Amino acid sequence: MHTTLASASRELVIGPDQPFCIIGERINPTGRKAFSEQLRGGDLSRIETDVAQQVAGGARVLDVNMGAPLADEAELMTRAVGLIQRLTDLPLCLDSSIIEVLEAGLAAYQGKALVNSVTAEDERLAAILPLVARHGAAVIGLPNDEEEIPEEPRRRAELARKIVEVADSHGIPAQDVLIDPLAMPVGADTSLVVRTLETIALVREELGVNMTLGASNVSFGMPQRHAIGAAFLPMAMAQGLTSAIMDARAPQVVRSVQAADLLLGNDPWGAGWIAAHRAGQAAQVVP
Amino acid sequence: MHTTLASASRELVIGPDQPFCIIGERINPTGRKAFSEQLRGGDLSRIETDVAQQVAGGARVLDVNMGAPLADEAELMTRAVGLIQRLTDLPLCLDSSIIEVLEAGLAAYQGKALVNSVTAEDERLAAILPLVARHGAAVIGLPNDEEEIPEEPRRRAELARKIVEVADSHGIPAQDVLIDPLAMPVGADTSLVVRTLETIALVREELGVNMTLGASNVSFGMPQRHAIGAAFLPMAMAQGLTSAIMDARAPQVVRSVQAADLLLGNDPWGAGWIAAHRAGQAAQVVP
Repeated sequence: MHTTLASASRELVIGPDQPFCIIGERINPTGRKAFSEQLRGGDLSRIETDVAQQVAGGARVLDVNMGAPLADEAELMTRAVGLIQRLTDLPLCLDSSIIEVLEAGLAAYQGKALVNSVTAEDERLAAILPLVARHGAAVIGLPNDEEEIPEEPRRRAELARKIVEVADSHGIPAQDVLIDPLAMPVGADTSLVVRTLETIALVREELGVNMTLGASNVSFGMPQRHAIGAAFLPMAMAQGLTSAIMDARAPQVVRSVQAADLLLGNDPWGAGWIAAHRAGQAAQVVP
Repeated sequence: MHTTLASASRELVIGPDQPFCIIGERINPTGRKAFSEQLRGGDLSRIETDVAQQVAGGARVLDVNMGAPLADEAELMTRAVGLIQRLTDLPLCLDSSIIEVLEAGLAAYQGKALVNSVTAEDERLAAILPLVARHGAAVIGLPNDEEEIPEEPRRRAELARKIVEVADSHGIPAQDVLIDPLAMPVGADTSLVVRTLETIALVREELGVNMTLGASNVSFGMPQRHAIGAAFLPMAMAQGLTSAIMDARAPQVVRSVQAADLLLGNDPWGAGWIAAHRAGQAAQVVP
């Protein structure tokens, strides 16, 4: 199945026969004190560097989250979308838990955006999906409901199916829903990642939709986070993951994704791999 | 299923709930001109360094191949087995296509060895399996027969089943057969690795036996081989691969295997990962 996103001038296709879709996670004030304070003062200037680094690193989509405490998030989202779309032609992923912020972002956005995110809670589905449908956007669906974030892959797949079906009833086709199989920190419980991998395999088999997840969650609290991310993503890709919100500025992780693209047959003749190697040699940054 | 190997003083268990079994590939003259010439002259002194580096790198088993052109391979194998068993208590994998060499190695070996390898060809099965059974060893089975190295995962799984069944008729239980799902160079054809991954999943599902493969084959002829190996092994492990003959001296690849162990729940509480990180910090060799 193919999900197409677009900026004003460029389309991007996500799918199992496409190079993995790296969604850059950086434009987000969570855990960034200085950026958070800048946003509270209405200063978006830091975003220019964030965009440049992620584009250079290999991002194909940029996540935009303006959730700084005490800031006017809707206004910031409107301005950020305008600014980023002047800086790059990559499609954007509009990231907020507040409906008015998603609405503001979608109103400002030129193209077909990805909305991050809706859960399987009835109230959230009813509030967010009409907005997604009205703007012809795509949406990330998280398989948790009012009761729980389920541990069981089978239950996650059921909630994923619910999201896909309710989206369909709002006129949003399955190819415009990306399911998040829920990546949890391996440091909290070393059995959690296996459940995520099983969920990916189930969702691929039963729903066939594209998927994305927050890859950095997996290594939270552990040493050598990039080495963990670099091992996790190929595993998840082999099970059917087609996209991730991740650190596009970490060469070790990006290179691992590119190697997995090659190994999964999504880099014809290895042309991308060899080109990246030569570019790295030229820049003398690749060991 | 658990495969147990042993040296004179130490047992090693291979299985899906165990840390991945890294089989060091280094003691092999293929592609090593100086070592090959030393072996031809009966000089085994280089092996001491090969053993030390692979043990330090994280190998759990050492492959021993004495296939130097014009050398007396059986005599070298006998001497190498004796030497290596004095240097380390890791179990060994005796690697030759010549039956007399395997016989010499098994006669010299103290413990339960892994024999590398037998194919699904009737003549090879009839020659090698009685030897394996007589010495109570384990054996690697390659699913190719007189006709072909099959491309189709389904056909590979059928030949794997044949090897397991014929082994059983010789008194070798399924847990003492490691199937090699045949890792091919991605540079030759970018669809080949997907077939290997599919074969791994099929063999796990249908036979449940342990598996091993030559991981370095995958990156043959490509730039940045270690980055490819570091992405390939976690993918294969997520599908069910429990062992690989690989470069135990490449920290990038070994670290990736250790991360995959952590992510698959085979490093309880992440203790191994954290210990490896601290050891790396102490040695200041980990970036």
